[in-house]
Amino acid sequence: MFKRLKRQCCEANLLLPRLGLVLYTFGNVSCADRKRGVFAIKPSGVEYAKLKPEDIVIVDFDGNVVDGELRPSSDTPTHAVLYREFPEIGGVVHTHSVYATGWAQALRDIPIFGTTHADHLPTAVPCTEWMSDERIAGDYELETGRQIVDCFRQRQLNPEEVEMALVGGHGPFTWGKNAEKAVYNARVLEELARMAQVTVTVNPEAKTLKPAIIDRHYRRKHGKDAYYGQQ
Amino acid sequence: MFKRLKRQCCEANLLLPRLGLVLYTFGNVSCADRKRGVFAIKPSGVEYAKLKPEDIVIVDFDGNVVDGELRPSSDTPTHAVLYREFPEIGGVVHTHSVYATGWAQALRDIPIFGTTHADHLPTAVPCTEWMSDERIAGDYELETGRQIVDCFRQRQLNPEEVEMALVGGHGPFTWGKNAEKAVYNARVLEELARMAQVTVTVNPEAKTLKPAIIDRHYRRKHGKDAYYGQQ
Amino acid sequence: MFKRLKRQCCEANLLLPRLGLVLYTFGNVSCADRKRGVFAIKPSGVEYAKLKPEDIVIVDFDGNVVDGELRPSSDTPTHAVLYREFPEIGGVVHTHSVYATGWAQALRDIPIFGTTHADHLPTAVPCTEWMSDERIAGDYELETGRQIVDCFRQRQLNPEEVEMALVGGHGPFTWGKNAEKAVYNARVLEELARMAQVTVTVNPEAKTLKPAIIDRHYRRKHGKDAYYGQQ
Amino acid sequence: MFKRLKRQCCEANLLLPRLGLVLYTFGNVSCADRKRGVFAIKPSGVEYAKLKPEDIVIVDFDGNVVDGELRPSSDTPTHAVLYREFPEIGGVVHTHSVYATGWAQALRDIPIFGTTHADHLPTAVPCTEWMSDERIAGDYELETGRQIVDCFRQRQLNPEEVEMALVGGHGPFTWGKNAEKAVYNARVLEELARMAQVTVTVNPEAKTLKPAIIDRHYRRKHGKDAYYGQQ
Repeated sequence: MFKRLKRQCCEANLLLPRLGLVLYTFGNVSCADRKRGVFAIKPSGVEYAKLKPEDIVIVDFDGNVVDGELRPSSDTPTHAVLYREFPEIGGVVHTHSVYATGWAQALRDIPIFGTTHADHLPTAVPCTEWMSDERIAGDYELETGRQIVDCFRQRQLNPEEVEMALVGGHGPFTWGKNAEKAVYNARVLEELARMAQVTVTVNPEAKTLKPAIIDRHYRRKHGKDAYYGQQ
Repeated sequence: MFKRLKRQCCEANLLLPRLGLVLYTFGNVSCADRKRGVFAIKPSGVEYAKLKPEDIVIVDFDGNVVDGELRPSSDTPTHAVLYREFPEIGGVVHTHSVYATGWAQALRDIPIFGTTHADHLPTAVPCTEWMSDERIAGDYELETGRQIVDCFRQRQLNPEEVEMALVGGHGPFTWGKNAEKAVYNARVLEELARMAQVTVTVNPEAKTLKPAIIDRHYRRKHGKDAYYGQQ
Repeated sequence: MFKRLKRQCCEANLLLPRLGLVLYTFGNVSCADRKRGVFAIKPSGVEYAKLKPEDIVIVDFDGNVVDGELRPSSDTPTHAVLYREFPEIGGVVHTHSVYATGWAQALRDIPIFGTTHADHLPTAVPCTEWMSDERIAGDYELETGRQIVDCFRQRQLNPEEVEMALVGGHGPFTWGKNAEKAVYNARVLEELARMAQVTVTVNPEAKTLKPAIIDRHYRRKHGKDAYYGQQ
Repeated sequence: MFKRLKRQCCEANLLLPRLGLVLYTFGNVSCADRKRGVFAIKPSGVEYAKLKPEDIVIVDFDGNVVDGELRPSSDTPTHAVLYREFPEIGGVVHTHSVYATGWAQALRDIPIFGTTHADHLPTAVPCTEWMSDERIAGDYELETGRQIVDCFRQRQLNPEEVEMALVGGHGPFTWGKNAEKAVYNARVLEELARMAQVTVTVNPEAKTLKPAIIDRHYRRKHGKDAYYGQQ
């Protein structure tokens, strides 16, 4: 029934270890089928080496299991919030990749230091604050999603422009129009985090890129005047 | 006689180079058979590429050789102390993995900066002090084990909760209910040490995670209310 | 018609991922045929894993397409400027390799700290300033090339001696007598950038090498008294 | 005639790229035959991927070519000085490995921060000063060897105990009773350099290990009371 969606989701999950983004089971990818009102997600704690399409779990946007034998990722409610609040997205990725997590633990936005960054998003990679004790005591994984959504609201960020966030003290979440793009963004984020670490260690006073360059680079790849690639 | 235990121990040892945790012969894994009152351990100075189950040495919990042709790891007395003092553990690992050793050399606990850490233990990774000159002059490897045990007593740490330690000026030791779990912990520790290095280099003022988040994450994976994984 | 040039260019491009210098499509190599007044360059946004010689685009030194079905790299005007202004060069490489880009983002020249560096060029790796707003508003990629050329003029650098530059806030460009040499320089630059990061993190007061050693090393490999290698 | 020596030397050289210690041709290994008064060394500038035993050059301890078609490594006079001045050694290695070179560029000894280091040598890894202008103007590669020898004399270091040195502003040299041991030392040195970089970045005030621990560890592996390994 959800055969194709499960296979897509399984393949996207298997990209994470191949791209060096996960250790053991520290990550998960989901992909949505908006028409059917569901998304497919990795089962909780299953090793990547053994993951098969049949293991993938189908849940609705409230996080209720619709199909599948296994328990879905414990991060399922976070994915569900993002699908509900960011209606254009079709895939979500969560990892604990080393450099992005290092910045998330430092509670610092990743500054926009260069054009590699500006080619993908026009602002710093936002890092949320720590969750309030009240929220922690509630539905923790759902509240993790809300931390991201609130951060985007407060800063007036557009989730179609900024397809990534660091959850403070936790790690990165990325998304995109589909799961493959969300995985691409997770890999790009890790690269931006590494480059930015090099930058701050060789120049602790490094300044963020000036707006005119940011704007120029972002528009090379995005929007109606984009001229990068074959389209 | 100890065929199965030796094979288990050999396989666990071979994971170390595969996981990038050892250079040359800089590490060893042991696994205990509590019923028979013995543990199996890597022979001293034997290359991983040539290690076979027959080479594994069986010793009792006082470190006396019970079976095997070769001399056991020079770290055998350290393993023995840990098995004697931490009665629930079934495997011990020692490596000189780069990042964990870097922190041990810095004589710094690895602070609990994020949830990757809190998913595995609810405190900093403890780093012992340097050994006293008196102890150094005694049975050095046995005293290395005592440094860990004393550190856990003084700080009132539970070795079933905190399955890893840094020996100050030396390197990491990890353990677990069996050798496979101890190796898993050695790999996780190296990842935590890398992430924490990124964190302190991008924010020298980085704060440790607040207790409510630590507690929440630790309980996601441990104890009676754990809800991570398939069981 | 341009079969051989396209194959050369394709092979040189494929070296970039093999040498760990590019993620996804973040880089490109061109190679010139000075007699015919053209250069071959990677098409824009095409994945390395799928790149074939037929995909390569041939353009003249003003950046006009002469042959090929696909759109050339968006960086084509930068390459064209370098070929026009540096008449001895036969190949150009652009990447976003992590360490070189980290320094470019820091807006710092890579100091000449050691002989690995002096074996290849007798000065710091120059890092240009940010582009002026006026230039950004103009033909951006062409102006990127001009930033490099202006920097070389102002500092009186010889592009046959210094075959690499960092564009401030952007990333590295390298060149050479042919595409293979330009790729070699891109890989060497990344190594110099890594070594220099280690140097400044272990000694923030590290001094640049003294002129006599720089000169001696540079002349070991370059000029009429060179005595390195088999020629 | 020198068939076996050439094969040995070739194999030892091929270990360098396999161990990640060299980029392109940035390194060389020699191995001595003390009875015949010669040593075998890599030819200058030959790619590792193409290196064959027949390419190896045989020179005497004054650096004169005795056998071989190719020009020997430009570093041959440095190797020759080390063989003349350190009469017990049978192999010499020179690389530009990233971390060891990073420290050499910083003009800093690698402090003895931990037991990984003390297992191999009982002091800091010495870093020589920059060469004097007078020496630079002379026989540069021979003087590079003298820098090391002078440093060992001034500091009263024993080259059988301390089998490695950093040449300030240049990079590492290691040696040993044979070429294989010298390569082992080159790999160990790179590991010590990496660990020490982690240590100083996580604790800029890190102290060197106290003498009693250094002594204990060094004697575990060296001297008449050694008890590490199977001998």
